[in-house]
Amino acid sequence: MKLGQLAEFLGATLQGPEELVITGLATLQEAGPGQLSFLANPQYRKYLVDTQASAVLLRAADAEGFAGNALIVPDPYLAYARISHLFDPKPKAVAGIHPSAVVAADAQVDASASIGPFAVIESGAVIAANVTVGAHCFVGARSVIGEGGWLAPRVTLYHDVRIGKRVVIQSGAVLGGEGFGFANEKGVWQKIAQIGGVSIGDDVEIGVNTAIDRGALADTRIGDGVKLDNQIQIAHNVQVGDHTAMAACVGISGSTRIGKHCTIAGGVGMVGHIDVCDNVFVSGMTMVTRSITEPGGYSSGTAMQTLADWRKSAARIRQLDDMAKRLQQLEKRVETVTSGDQPSSDG
Amino acid sequence: MKLGQLAEFLGATLQGPEELVITGLATLQEAGPGQLSFLANPQYRKYLVDTQASAVLLRAADAEGFAGNALIVPDPYLAYARISHLFDPKPKAVAGIHPSAVVAADAQVDASASIGPFAVIESGAVIAANVTVGAHCFVGARSVIGEGGWLAPRVTLYHDVRIGKRVVIQSGAVLGGEGFGFANEKGVWQKIAQIGGVSIGDDVEIGVNTAIDRGALADTRIGDGVKLDNQIQIAHNVQVGDHTAMAACVGISGSTRIGKHCTIAGGVGMVGHIDVCDNVFVSGMTMVTRSITEPGGYSSGTAMQTLADWRKSAARIRQLDDMAKRLQQLEKRVETVTSGDQPSSDG
Amino acid sequence: MKLGQLAEFLGATLQGPEELVITGLATLQEAGPGQLSFLANPQYRKYLVDTQASAVLLRAADAEGFAGNALIVPDPYLAYARISHLFDPKPKAVAGIHPSAVVAADAQVDASASIGPFAVIESGAVIAANVTVGAHCFVGARSVIGEGGWLAPRVTLYHDVRIGKRVVIQSGAVLGGEGFGFANEKGVWQKIAQIGGVSIGDDVEIGVNTAIDRGALADTRIGDGVKLDNQIQIAHNVQVGDHTAMAACVGISGSTRIGKHCTIAGGVGMVGHIDVCDNVFVSGMTMVTRSITEPGGYSSGTAMQTLADWRKSAARIRQLDDMAKRLQQLEKRVETVTSGDQPSSDG
Repeated sequence: MKLGQLAEFLGATLQGPEELVITGLATLQEAGPGQLSFLANPQYRKYLVDTQASAVLLRAADAEGFAGNALIVPDPYLAYARISHLFDPKPKAVAGIHPSAVVAADAQVDASASIGPFAVIESGAVIAANVTVGAHCFVGARSVIGEGGWLAPRVTLYHDVRIGKRVVIQSGAVLGGEGFGFANEKGVWQKIAQIGGVSIGDDVEIGVNTAIDRGALADTRIGDGVKLDNQIQIAHNVQVGDHTAMAACVGISGSTRIGKHCTIAGGVGMVGHIDVCDNVFVSGMTMVTRSITEPGGYSSGTAMQTLADWRKSAARIRQLDDMAKRLQQLEKRVETVTSGDQPSSDG
Repeated sequence: MKLGQLAEFLGATLQGPEELVITGLATLQEAGPGQLSFLANPQYRKYLVDTQASAVLLRAADAEGFAGNALIVPDPYLAYARISHLFDPKPKAVAGIHPSAVVAADAQVDASASIGPFAVIESGAVIAANVTVGAHCFVGARSVIGEGGWLAPRVTLYHDVRIGKRVVIQSGAVLGGEGFGFANEKGVWQKIAQIGGVSIGDDVEIGVNTAIDRGALADTRIGDGVKLDNQIQIAHNVQVGDHTAMAACVGISGSTRIGKHCTIAGGVGMVGHIDVCDNVFVSGMTMVTRSITEPGGYSSGTAMQTLADWRKSAARIRQLDDMAKRLQQLEKRVETVTSGDQPSSDG
Repeated sequence: MKLGQLAEFLGATLQGPEELVITGLATLQEAGPGQLSFLANPQYRKYLVDTQASAVLLRAADAEGFAGNALIVPDPYLAYARISHLFDPKPKAVAGIHPSAVVAADAQVDASASIGPFAVIESGAVIAANVTVGAHCFVGARSVIGEGGWLAPRVTLYHDVRIGKRVVIQSGAVLGGEGFGFANEKGVWQKIAQIGGVSIGDDVEIGVNTAIDRGALADTRIGDGVKLDNQIQIAHNVQVGDHTAMAACVGISGSTRIGKHCTIAGGVGMVGHIDVCDNVFVSGMTMVTRSITEPGGYSSGTAMQTLADWRKSAARIRQLDDMAKRLQQLEKRVETVTSGDQPSSDG
């Protein structure tokens, strides 16, 4: 790609030669000749002077006084996001069904779709236009993948999983597993068939080894634009609102409903049957034990300490109820003393 | 299904027409004509009046004054569990070995078993009657699946994994992986071969992407009726007692033994080499750092707060040891003061 | 194996008959005739007297006064580690490409390598000598597996994943998944192509269902001798130093760098963009929220209590800031009282 082409693609102001060839992307510190970099985080401005990048994506303010080549844009990080796809070495799938794949006679596979080696497409499944189904994928009966979807190798969709358009699913993800539904009969767990499905909106991304269980009765629902990182667990009947993002290792228990535009950091756990409103941020490894009705940030847990200090804190926390009572007692006693002869005001 | 048939199946008292056709199940709020619902949780009694369900599973007490059709049972949730399987759209596997499967010459596969596409069954493995082995499953050498077992697509059993009867294993689960065994030699980790196996009881359920490692020397053991949710990690040599249930994202470290009828909530972690007695409940995301010898509930962690409040709490926890010492000092000082001239009683 | 052969293999001092046949390994408590055991942890010395083992790996000090057969070594646990591989029932793979595997015409597979059923090896991939690629593995374009590597059934390597020598990867692991990279444009997440790769050193072990994402620009890097247990999440651009070990369920956020010889216990979470120095130990389920610059142990979280006690502690923690202020106030008040008329010294 030439710098002029990139400027045009982005609608950027070009500062430098149109014909400059750009062969890749890198950070300011690591970029070498031929590479384009970007300055998004002001913390990294210090690396701008010495960067070996052939050109840099910059805000107008940062471009002032920068002698090198630049593409001036309002949001360099977003510009980098858009341009990154032009340099992606990810192999493109070829349309057609690999001869080794097992496709049910009554499954519908669009001619523009790509079905990889050893994929299994079951009865009544529908694969729309420009979908990639990677090697070793399993698409269960009546499941639907909307147009432009991309399934990495080895993704499992059970039956009745309905996926919107342009959805990306990473390797090892499992959609439609049988949720954890059991009724206890005198100490023995009796299985409840999970007869609902899974419904995924458009433009969703689902990470490596993430699990989304099917609904017990109705569908488990993931809204449009939701981004789920790796190793996430979404239990049966959960609902996730549009454009909510969850980092890795989050676990959401059954029937919990999460609003739109929430950001759930890594390792967060939520109990079941609660509601979280829109625009909530939950910090890493927080345990969400109740509904959240006000937008804003929420946390639980304790800050990291050295092991020696932590041992003291942990022991003290166990004494905390006792401490609170002693404090109250002391307050009363001091109150009695000082109100008795009031030395502080009279003394 | 007709309502009368369902009453007979459940041994329920029928309140309504025998011939009423039931086509599905739904919650009280979501049910429409033709659907059967249930009232188990008293919280949902408010939805009973307006439900559009054609019939409802009810306790006798709740049926009083309910004008609609009902199946009266002692435990509506359990009745729903039993009836749910009648409405399960899960495809039934067909007996026989898919032509694409690779089955070792000396593996034993019962004629009533179903082996899916691209399954691999290794030397000496035994697949009993009425077992379903889904597509892309791998059954290692000498592994045994007892009768009535159901393996979703893409389950891995390493060699020497012995599974009881009627065991359900969801997609992505891995049984018999090599546990984390290393001896440290001057800072370098030397691998210890994991020569034990895995032993799973009857009526066990194992969730999506759950891992159960093989034993280092003897077997890792899961008792009868144990239910393991998704994304669980069971390390080598762990023993789990009968009818214990674990919610998603639990991690149990090596050689820990858990009793019978325990309930381990989501995200719990247990250190290795401890014993947990029968009938223990551990709340979500608790870190179990020592053996538990008394039945009952156990917890760790802190309650969720707004980010602003949490920051204050977290800072204060780090000062807690200091606070405790100051409190003690103050008590002594006040003690001296008040015992010295006892102003409070004499003043 | 004969006891004399084992002595020779280990360079151990033999106490007992050279010709004694050893058929397996077991713990002191569980060993029976024909089995070799070991005493590493002094806690288990009590089991030495009554062990039914035919021979025991012992330190010289523990061998004194032990009447049974023994192999005397400086480090019995390490000796057990070395000897364990001689008794491993793990099936050995046969060299050659299984007829069902799909191997790209331009992939290089060494003649001594074993490629299992339904494996897929994509364009430009390189499989070195004595590598085992298990059934259902996927090796993406241009990925490289160094000599002596062992991939369990069902491992996914995306494109451009470079793996060193003698690396062991357990079932369900995914290397090279697309990291969680999105730029937020007015509330909508825009995907950033992940154009870096993954680089894994020599002698690394990667556990069941562990995920290592590819780098956003440069590679995600795992050093030599690193041991990663099951269900771990390594985000894009993370760097892990040589000989660091992580127990199960750890999550490391993007761009974090971890030093050499660290030990990260189970369930630990680390935020992104931090540095952890060499020789750090982090205890189970700790949340690492900042860089660590000093070797040693670190923890967060609270100790387990009974549910009833925990409820009190949790409530008190929320009052902690208030308590701290009241304590300070009380100190001032008492200070005023005692300095005002000093009854304690004068009384």
